Formats: sequence, structure tokens, C-alpha cells
Amino acid sequence: MNLQNLWKEYSKVIIKTGVNLQENQILVVQAPIESREFVHVISETAYEMGAKEVIIRWSDEILIKQKFKYCSIETLQEIPQHFIDFYIDYKNKKAAFLSLVGEDPELLKKVDPKKIKSSIEAKSIALKEYYQSLMGDEISWNVAAVSIPSWAKAVFPELDEKEAQYRLWKEILDASRIEEENSVELWKTHIQNLKDHADYLNAMEFKRFHYTNKQGTDLTIDFPEGHIWRAGYGITKDGIEFVANIPTEEVYTLPHKKGINGIVYSSKPFNYAGNIIDEFYLKIKDGKIVEAKAKKGEEILNQLIHTDKGSMYFGEVALVPFDSPISNRNLLFYNTLFDENASCHLAIGKAYPTCLKDSEDKTVEELEELGVNDSIVHEDFMIGTKDLNIDGIRKNGEIIPVFRNGNWA
Amino acid sequence: MNLQNLWKEYSKVIIKTGVNLQENQILVVQAPIESREFVHVISETAYEMGAKEVIIRWSDEILIKQKFKYCSIETLQEIPQHFIDFYIDYKNKKAAFLSLVGEDPELLKKVDPKKIKSSIEAKSIALKEYYQSLMGDEISWNVAAVSIPSWAKAVFPELDEKEAQYRLWKEILDASRIEEENSVELWKTHIQNLKDHADYLNAMEFKRFHYTNKQGTDLTIDFPEGHIWRAGYGITKDGIEFVANIPTEEVYTLPHKKGINGIVYSSKPFNYAGNIIDEFYLKIKDGKIVEAKAKKGEEILNQLIHTDKGSMYFGEVALVPFDSPISNRNLLFYNTLFDENASCHLAIGKAYPTCLKDSEDKTVEELEELGVNDSIVHEDFMIGTKDLNIDGIRKNGEIIPVFRNGNWA
Repeated sequence: MNLQNLWKEYSKVIIKTGVNLQENQILVVQAPIESREFVHVISETAYEMGAKEVIIRWSDEILIKQKFKYCSIETLQEIPQHFIDFYIDYKNKKAAFLSLVGEDPELLKKVDPKKIKSSIEAKSIALKEYYQSLMGDEISWNVAAVSIPSWAKAVFPELDEKEAQYRLWKEILDASRIEEENSVELWKTHIQNLKDHADYLNAMEFKRFHYTNKQGTDLTIDFPEGHIWRAGYGITKDGIEFVANIPTEEVYTLPHKKGINGIVYSSKPFNYAGNIIDEFYLKIKDGKIVEAKAKKGEEILNQLIHTDKGSMYFGEVALVPFDSPISNRNLLFYNTLFDENASCHLAIGKAYPTCLKDSEDKTVEELEELGVNDSIVHEDFMIGTKDLNIDGIRKNGEIIPVFRNGNWA
Repeated sequence: MNLQNLWKEYSKVIIKTGVNLQENQILVVQAPIESREFVHVISETAYEMGAKEVIIRWSDEILIKQKFKYCSIETLQEIPQHFIDFYIDYKNKKAAFLSLVGEDPELLKKVDPKKIKSSIEAKSIALKEYYQSLMGDEISWNVAAVSIPSWAKAVFPELDEKEAQYRLWKEILDASRIEEENSVELWKTHIQNLKDHADYLNAMEFKRFHYTNKQGTDLTIDFPEGHIWRAGYGITKDGIEFVANIPTEEVYTLPHKKGINGIVYSSKPFNYAGNIIDEFYLKIKDGKIVEAKAKKGEEILNQLIHTDKGSMYFGEVALVPFDSPISNRNLLFYNTLFDENASCHLAIGKAYPTCLKDSEDKTVEELEELGVNDSIVHEDFMIGTKDLNIDGIRKNGEIIPVFRNGNWA
């Protein structure tokens, strides 16, 4: 594998297909410091494609750990205005935002969960306007992955650090459908395939899904009037098509906030806030989580659920066949970007307003009335198994098998 | 050499002696991304010594080069408000500021000098309030060095990158008077020695210096009434003693803005804005540079001189014996922090107001009247040679040899 070549292809897919950077647009990149060499490639590619300027914000796991170890809750909650202004300024300048993700899945394992909650809460509230503009597709954005040593060692504990990092790069690039050449063209075909699934689901006008499997999941999900199944790309207010996640294998919409009932079991570990939550179930009544139990990470799970009013409700329903390219690798990435694209999933928290017709000019309150959940969090967790069945109930009462044994029926 | 041990000692000297971090104070660090491992040590030391929070701003030479290659002059001149607010906010919060420096001395060699000038100018103007608060000792700050591959290769071109970086670390730590233990205590003695020299110069009440050497330097420098020779440490408005440079071997004051006449030759290459300026001389009349010629980097030198009105005048006169510990290494660091502490030097541009009695409440205009130069630049360049003689002329007309053959007379 010629990593440099593949990196260049990957960077083209991210810049062209992902954020779809326009001539003279600013690109803001967030990236782990260990991915420096790849960031140089991304940055050069962006400039070659006409970027006005590339701004990098580095994160460093060692410094994050030190911060959580030594800083008080009060300090962790202080978000300076200039930090908020950074995001608002570039959003107003219509920059494209790229998040390169890669982290130790258990980075904050030993940290007091109160500190984690306080810090996430403060940051989410401070950056609410920015996050809303992303989730509302006001601007183009993309999340893609980079291999860093700590994450690689978690995925491949048997390899030494260098080998593990190289191997994880290989998996990321393969799972992200990066080839030696023409990756941007291949992505066009891929996105069209996903879109065909979404078109089918939209044409069927389902009002409810019923999930069952042997694990114990037995869940009904109602969809609000005017919900839209989406896949692959979003379109900004200025008409720019972009792909928010690389990889992406999902077709998704929003549930009606108050229309979920039953019990759902997790099918993969869920990585949240530097902790792993595993083997958990949620009991749900009228859309609200009424019970949450986990064999691992229960305290963090409950903190997530109790972040705000909306974090007890759901914001996303996504379909991914069990036989997807990522899933077939049979690898636990411990990273939502990959694990969510290897499995049907739901998201706790905020819904994408873009999944509802005519949502553009409505307030958060008006959207809530229509069943669109609001929250400062949006966290995907995986529920797909190889024996998952989903029945779709149409407006006219007709029952249609949507998924059988984990795959499209 | 146990690098980890010495790094810990170095970090203690920087945090305790350098910025003299107080309990619950914020530390802001600027550092090259290649010095990441050492930054982790510095950060941990700061937390151990009671830092409220450590904020790191990374710089990356590859990204800087890309920026100068691809961005227009207009883009290079745009300084976002949130960038300025970052510095003002932490200054107002009385943070301590640490700059860890290390750079390829010819980083911007191939860049259009107009781009460099525009960028430096825009940044200097935008951050003027912040820089003034540093130069006026409002807050504690420190500049210390870190070894990075590009710089190390410039100093030791015959070594491979890793060896060169290790070797440069050794030189930095030695030159910075870092020992296996008790370095903080040793620094106290060193600072006292420097202070003794300053006390002597202050007691002599010189009104003029006369510099001569065989290279051709023949220069008189008048000092303003009430000038103060300083060495080693500064004292913030809150009474915190700090050391602004590690290493520091100099005793310095300000010249009278209009009181310099003659010709002065550079004695070492002068590294400015990613370029090397070498073998140059300046002709000066009534404080103003009237001619500047360089065998290397003349265009960049002239751009520096023509930055603003004050950059044609001088802001600092510093004495360093030719037999100083750094000088005796007989090594060209191509980095002002080291080369200035190995040689008598002058600075083009802004003077430190703290070198004049009762300057605290005076405006920039009032200070100019008294002979204190103002500019957005302050750049040291080296003039000390092994045959440099300096005569001091006292108020009463008495002539006293201050330097003979490059050393204290």
C-alpha cells in the first residue's frame, strides 16, 4: 500500500466530495496533532482546489488528559468568548468545516464523569449556534477519520504502535472506499446507490417501523408527517452538495419525538466522551427513555441521557445493512463514524430539521410541535444485528418487510 | 544525557524562573508542533505548580509555508477579531505568556518579501496592545527555545535529522544553564551576577558610548536622561519578578532615539522573518538609518527598516561579553534568542519603556519626546566582535573603558 498516494486520493474525496470546497472558500480543519502528516496533505489539496485559506485547530490527547486531571469543574466550564467567536466568524464567512477524528476510545476512562458532563455541556451550549448551522446544513461540513496511535492500539492491541497505526490507516481508507485512482468518481456512484434506497423509502410513505430480533429488541418507531429519508449528501442554503460523513453507508430520517415505544438493545460498544458504553438496553415510552441499563459505562450513559430535556428523546433513525463493506470487515472500530456505518442505529438527542419537509423557516418550538426533537447532544448508537427484522407499516396500513436478517428485504 | 530529566529541570526553570507562574494563574504557551513531547512536560510542570489552566497554540512550519505559497497578500493581511481577542482576553485575565521558539532559519527564503512584510505588519498592528503589555512588563512572559528538526539541520547540517535534533537539544539546555538538578537555584545566582553589572553601569551614569572595532564599526550612542540598565528579570505591575528570556546573558538599556551616529557592522547572521540577513552594515545619522547594505538578504533588511517610522530608529543597546558561555560554544544558532546572548547587540525598532525612569504613566508621544522610540517591530542584531572596544563617557566628561577586546573592561 502506497500510503502517500492513497492519502492524496482520500484528501481529494474529503475536499471534493466531502465538504465540496468552492473556489476562494475558507476551510477550517480540526485534527488530532498525531495526524499532522496527513493534515499537510489535506491542506495542500484544499489549496490546490482553490481554498482561500486553510485554518487548522489541533487537538492533543495528552493535553486533554492533563486538563481533565488538573482543572476544576469551574475551569472546565469556562468557555471564552473568543473561542465561540472563532466558529461564528468562520460560519459567517461561509467557511467549510472539516473534522478529522481519531481518538483513544477510553481517553477519559479514569476521569470523574461529572467533569466530563460539565465540560461537554458547557461547550455544547456555547457552540449551539454553530452546531445548529451544521445540523441545519447552512454550511458544508464533513467528518472523516485519521489513524492515530492510541486509537490504533485499541483496535489492534496485538500489534505494536507503528504497525497498528499503519493497519488502521489501511482499514480507514478501505472502509472509506478509497482506491489508487478515481475515488471521487467511485463516490458518485456510491452516493447514487444510497440515494436510490432513500427514494424507495420516501415513495413508500411509511408511518411506522417495527424492529425485532432475538437479542430482545422489540421497538416501534413512528415517523412524523412530512419526514424525509436522506442519504449521502446534504445541500447547503447556497445550493452546494456535500457529504457530511466519510464513510457513509446509511439512509436516515427522524422519528416522531413522542412516537417510540418498546425496548432496544445495543449491538456494539458505543464510544462517548472518551468512555466505552457496552451491552446496554433502553426502555422507551412515548419517545422518552424511561430505563437505561449497561454492563459497562452505565454512569456515563445516564449522564448522556440526562444532559437536557431533549437527551431523553431520539433524533435519528438510520438503516445500514448488516452486510455493508464496513460491517463485513468484522472489526470493532470503537469509533462511531465507522461503527454507525456498519449497523442500523438510532441517535439520542437532536434531530436533523432537514429531514422534515418545509422546516427551513420554523422555530425550534414549532419544530418540536411537529415531532422534531431538540437537544444539545446528538449521539448515534448501534442496534443492528444479523437477525434484525424491520417491518414497515404504510399510511394505508399495508405491512412491508424493510429489513430481513439484518439486510434490505 | 537523560533528556527527560533535563527537560523536567528546564521546564521548572521556565515556569518558576521564567514566567514565575503563580498559583491559579493561566499559562498560555505558543510552541512548534514538533516540540510536542517537551510541551507535555512544560504543561504538566505548570499544572504541578498550580496553573489554573494551560492553553497551547501550536505553530506548524509546513502549514506556514503553504499559507505563504498559496494565500494572497489580502488574505495574509486579514487578522480576524477573535484572534486578537484571544491575546487580549488572556492578558486581561493576567495569564503568563510563554513562547517556545524553534524554527527553520530560512523557512520563508523563497517567499515574496512583500507577502512577508504585509503579513508581519498586519499581525504586529493587530496585536499592538498585547505586545505593548509584554514590553511594558504588565504581565509576565518568557521566550525559551526548543529543538525542532528543521532548525537542528540548519545548525548541524552534517548530522542526520534525529541526531541533529538531539544535539541541538543538548546545546539549548547547556546554553540555558540547565543542570541535572538545582537549576532554579543556579539561575538565581546567575541573575544576581547580571544584576551586578547593571548596577555598576547605572552607578556610572554614562551619557554616551563609543564603539570601535577593526571591522569598521565606529559608532556613538547617547542615552536619554533617566535611562536604566537592566538585566535578567523584570517586575510586573503586580510585583511578580520574571525572566523574559532563557537564556539571558545581556545587560541592556535604551538609546536616545536621536542620539546615534556613525556606522555599525553586523558580526553574525541575523535571522528575521524566515530569512537570513548577513554581512551588513548600517549608517546612522541622528538616530536614523540612512544607509543599509547587506551581502545577503538586503531586500528583507530594507523591508524591516521601512516597516514604519520607528523602524528606522533604535530601541535597545545590549552588552554581552564575547567570552560568554553561549559565545564560547562557537556555534551559530541562526536564532536571535541565542545569538543575541552571545554578542553585544542593538535592536531596530521599539524601545522598552521600562528602561526609562518614571515611564509608567506617560503616553507614547510623551515618551518619544524623551527619546524613547516606538515601532511595531523590535529586532535584535549582533555587533559584538572579539576586538570590540567600548568607551563610556560619563556626565562629568570622564572617559571610562567599558569593553576591551570584546569583554568587560
